[in-house]
Amino acid sequence: MSLKNILLRTINQKNKFINLSASAVKVSNQEQYGHGGQQKKNYGYNRRTMATALFSSVVVGTMASAEKSDKNKNKNEDKTVEAGTIRPDLPTFRAEEVSKHDNEKSFWVTYKNGVYDVTAFLPSHPGGDQILNAGGLSIEPFWNVYGMHKTEEVYALLESYRIGNLHEDDVVDHSDEEMWVKEPSRDRRLVVKTARPFNAETPAKLQVAYFDTPNELFYVRQHMPVPELDQSSHRVKVIVKDGGVTSKEFSLQDLSRFPKGTVRAALMCAGNRRSEMNEQVKPVKGISWQGGAISSAVWEGVYLRDVLVHCGVDTHNTAGKHVIFTGADIDATGQNFSTSIPLDQALNPNSRIVLATSMNGRPLPPDHGYPLRVVVPGAPAVRSVKWLESITVSHEESPSHWHQKDYRSFNASKTWETADFASAPPIYSLPVTSAICDPVNGDTVTVKNGIVEIRGYAYSGGGAKILRVDISPDCGNTWIQAEEMQSDDAPPQQHYGWTLWTARIPVKRGQKELKLWAKATDSNFNTQPETFHDIWNIRGVLSNAYHKIKVQIKH
Amino acid sequence: MSLKNILLRTINQKNKFINLSASAVKVSNQEQYGHGGQQKKNYGYNRRTMATALFSSVVVGTMASAEKSDKNKNKNEDKTVEAGTIRPDLPTFRAEEVSKHDNEKSFWVTYKNGVYDVTAFLPSHPGGDQILNAGGLSIEPFWNVYGMHKTEEVYALLESYRIGNLHEDDVVDHSDEEMWVKEPSRDRRLVVKTARPFNAETPAKLQVAYFDTPNELFYVRQHMPVPELDQSSHRVKVIVKDGGVTSKEFSLQDLSRFPKGTVRAALMCAGNRRSEMNEQVKPVKGISWQGGAISSAVWEGVYLRDVLVHCGVDTHNTAGKHVIFTGADIDATGQNFSTSIPLDQALNPNSRIVLATSMNGRPLPPDHGYPLRVVVPGAPAVRSVKWLESITVSHEESPSHWHQKDYRSFNASKTWETADFASAPPIYSLPVTSAICDPVNGDTVTVKNGIVEIRGYAYSGGGAKILRVDISPDCGNTWIQAEEMQSDDAPPQQHYGWTLWTARIPVKRGQKELKLWAKATDSNFNTQPETFHDIWNIRGVLSNAYHKIKVQIKH
Repeated sequence: MSLKNILLRTINQKNKFINLSASAVKVSNQEQYGHGGQQKKNYGYNRRTMATALFSSVVVGTMASAEKSDKNKNKNEDKTVEAGTIRPDLPTFRAEEVSKHDNEKSFWVTYKNGVYDVTAFLPSHPGGDQILNAGGLSIEPFWNVYGMHKTEEVYALLESYRIGNLHEDDVVDHSDEEMWVKEPSRDRRLVVKTARPFNAETPAKLQVAYFDTPNELFYVRQHMPVPELDQSSHRVKVIVKDGGVTSKEFSLQDLSRFPKGTVRAALMCAGNRRSEMNEQVKPVKGISWQGGAISSAVWEGVYLRDVLVHCGVDTHNTAGKHVIFTGADIDATGQNFSTSIPLDQALNPNSRIVLATSMNGRPLPPDHGYPLRVVVPGAPAVRSVKWLESITVSHEESPSHWHQKDYRSFNASKTWETADFASAPPIYSLPVTSAICDPVNGDTVTVKNGIVEIRGYAYSGGGAKILRVDISPDCGNTWIQAEEMQSDDAPPQQHYGWTLWTARIPVKRGQKELKLWAKATDSNFNTQPETFHDIWNIRGVLSNAYHKIKVQIKH
Repeated sequence: MSLKNILLRTINQKNKFINLSASAVKVSNQEQYGHGGQQKKNYGYNRRTMATALFSSVVVGTMASAEKSDKNKNKNEDKTVEAGTIRPDLPTFRAEEVSKHDNEKSFWVTYKNGVYDVTAFLPSHPGGDQILNAGGLSIEPFWNVYGMHKTEEVYALLESYRIGNLHEDDVVDHSDEEMWVKEPSRDRRLVVKTARPFNAETPAKLQVAYFDTPNELFYVRQHMPVPELDQSSHRVKVIVKDGGVTSKEFSLQDLSRFPKGTVRAALMCAGNRRSEMNEQVKPVKGISWQGGAISSAVWEGVYLRDVLVHCGVDTHNTAGKHVIFTGADIDATGQNFSTSIPLDQALNPNSRIVLATSMNGRPLPPDHGYPLRVVVPGAPAVRSVKWLESITVSHEESPSHWHQKDYRSFNASKTWETADFASAPPIYSLPVTSAICDPVNGDTVTVKNGIVEIRGYAYSGGGAKILRVDISPDCGNTWIQAEEMQSDDAPPQQHYGWTLWTARIPVKRGQKELKLWAKATDSNFNTQPETFHDIWNIRGVLSNAYHKIKVQIKH
């Protein structure tokens, strides 16, 4: 049964909408923006089931999907009575309070209505650090994946750590997990921010360990479950709505007949470094990314421009037109993920937009769009739609919620009440940013010959190249230029890679602590703002002020 | 008599050659780069006097050159009494003795009757190594070209290095002003920063009065006297040094056979708003521009790219190559003005670089490059070389002083002693900036219906378009988005115009004073730094922090 069918069945059975509270997706908004059944007719939802053989060739997994699904179902029915019922003798906590206990000093989880302090259990967890992914969260989604937990012994053990009840408004129904059972396995080193949908950062020190991030360490940003697709049967439809409507369908083999397109591009979430804005100014909404929502790869396929020109797109009269990308991932209402970019940007050869089938010389992994994604270099990664099913040239931007109600820019004084998404500019390109990755904040670093060596990344969208990274060891009084800069060969205007840098900071004898600020300058000589105060915005996007950390020094 | 001839006569009178040995612009280099005497035969310095009729048709001016020239002369005479008079308390030197002190170990110059040991001053010279051209000689011919030296401060500084008197028989009259008598008349409304060379701002309120700045109000930045050229005899030579050397020469009529090229581009000096950096942090060297060193025009001619392709430039192997632009303006040593841009940038269609013969629908005025200039949109205006005589594709950047020793970027901690120009990146594109133009700082403004209306400009280089301008009336606590935005239709990546904006600021009853901050956000979502502190640099370029003014309120 396909994911879409599972979802639709679930919706019908429950006769209500699934609460995707961890995501920004609101059902009402989707309806408002016209993503009902009518739209779907045009896009043609002719998916085919992914062959099991193919699946196992690209996914590292040990438990067959079908088996797993059945197992979970049986166990859920038997055991769920045991744990997580309301205990009137215990206090009640809000999910927000629980979420703060997400570290080894204080580690809480929830299960149905129960709240548990399992800090003392952490060293004994048979699955090791994997448990840390559930810090401050419900363990149900994890246990639905790691079904071995669903035994009476484990439920009893869990209840022994019981400290309270989860506020009723914060209890989420996790029983419907079928849609997630086909999720690919992920590298354990990724720092999970949300399990479902799966959102995870590349650990800071691993970011700077590789100029091209290994595929399995590339940060993951999903809005929905990962769809199952098959490269041999996959088709992408190019629809041109310009006066009349024309459409052409391409298999991956059809696409491979176009000249080869390739680009080295870092992809960054528009919300990368949001946590700093959140902590240093005031709360924002969105996944609390540290600096790990950026990674780099070489993407290969064909150039979008060539395909659009082949399909007869008018390359001269481009003003006011858009290219809508639609992915195979579906939300709880059956709505496909979709967003758009201006046609000018799509056709501009400098944009180097690739319809990619390959990532760092290997087929795209399921988490990164297998078998086809568009890569829009320099733009927020949301525009690089995965599992690409259709490309529509239109006089309208994508009407989807994700396009209309997110990834737009507001000034620091706009509130959720005053922000007008319709008139706010969508973010199609990213500003200059940088981060110190090694050491990370709070580390103890060792001085060698009076020097502390630090490493990090810097990046700028719109084709700009990083020209300089400066580090201040004294809150802006002096600036030390990073000496080693590793970057792509592409010239400015077409440069989409990130820059990895190394700086050497002299420290004084006996100095105990070091505050470090990083700022980058790009080839347009734009620099980062000093603080987040004036770039704060309700969604916490474009969070590119100086990166500031504090480390202890060991002589 | 042409400027060059005037200069050569001066040199001949003195019966010796100017020693160019220590300059970055070595005579040998000029020959190497084809700008020596031999080259000049090719370029044909057969300039003719510009027809008065033509001259008056393109320049709106009220002050005749002669009249203005007299004025300046009087001013000079007032001040020069201070320096170079005979000091009986000091020893006397012969010119021959002085001429031996022409190197960095012992560096003497003369001024009228004075002899000065300025060895200790060399590292601090704002014009860098250019001063080395005057070693062992009189500085007067140089100061006649670089008129910014003629201030009381500089005379006083010079006298502080006084060591003796020049023997009376060796004192030469350098009061030769002939080179300046052909300067065009200028509009009286321009705000003159230096008279010789002529550097003047567009007044702030006139900047925002026109979307395309009238030619006569376009700010003027000259390094040397304005050369006299004739459109009918003018030739531009395209030299391609790539393995072999090929060259082609084009008259303006030849150029007109290429497809028409046009671009709306604001040109901005890299030092625009330098005065704010100077005042708010610490002194920088350079013309103390307010915000008036930016204006906008529509430039027409042909695309540089088309001409380069026509001349057989290899459009694929571009890495590490440069396009050197050489103008007809000459300095005191006979050196033509020259700078370069990367070949990648020159060939990129997005760059929209125009070989312009027309400015806002009229022939280029003499002050703006008549009859031919290159316009490099989005780059600091210095790259838009006026009076264009040659275009050289080369494996080297321009070797000129202006290219090698200026218009480069340093961090805030670099001093004149530590700055390494050779490794510093040349500025080929400008960051986002903005300014409030009406009212100006210190004005008294009138409230209408509780609102003060303010106007200004915003601009970003590299093809970026301004998406938002925000004004804070309370030092960053709240931000008000400008409502009216006037900009060019070109899409981002190819947008080179400025944006004129209007914002409406509510004021309280009885409020006496209003502090206003302006910041712009461009299509890459880059914003301006809050303060100048961390972008300060020795040359005061890229001075793009928030623009802050204070006005009085009249109810």
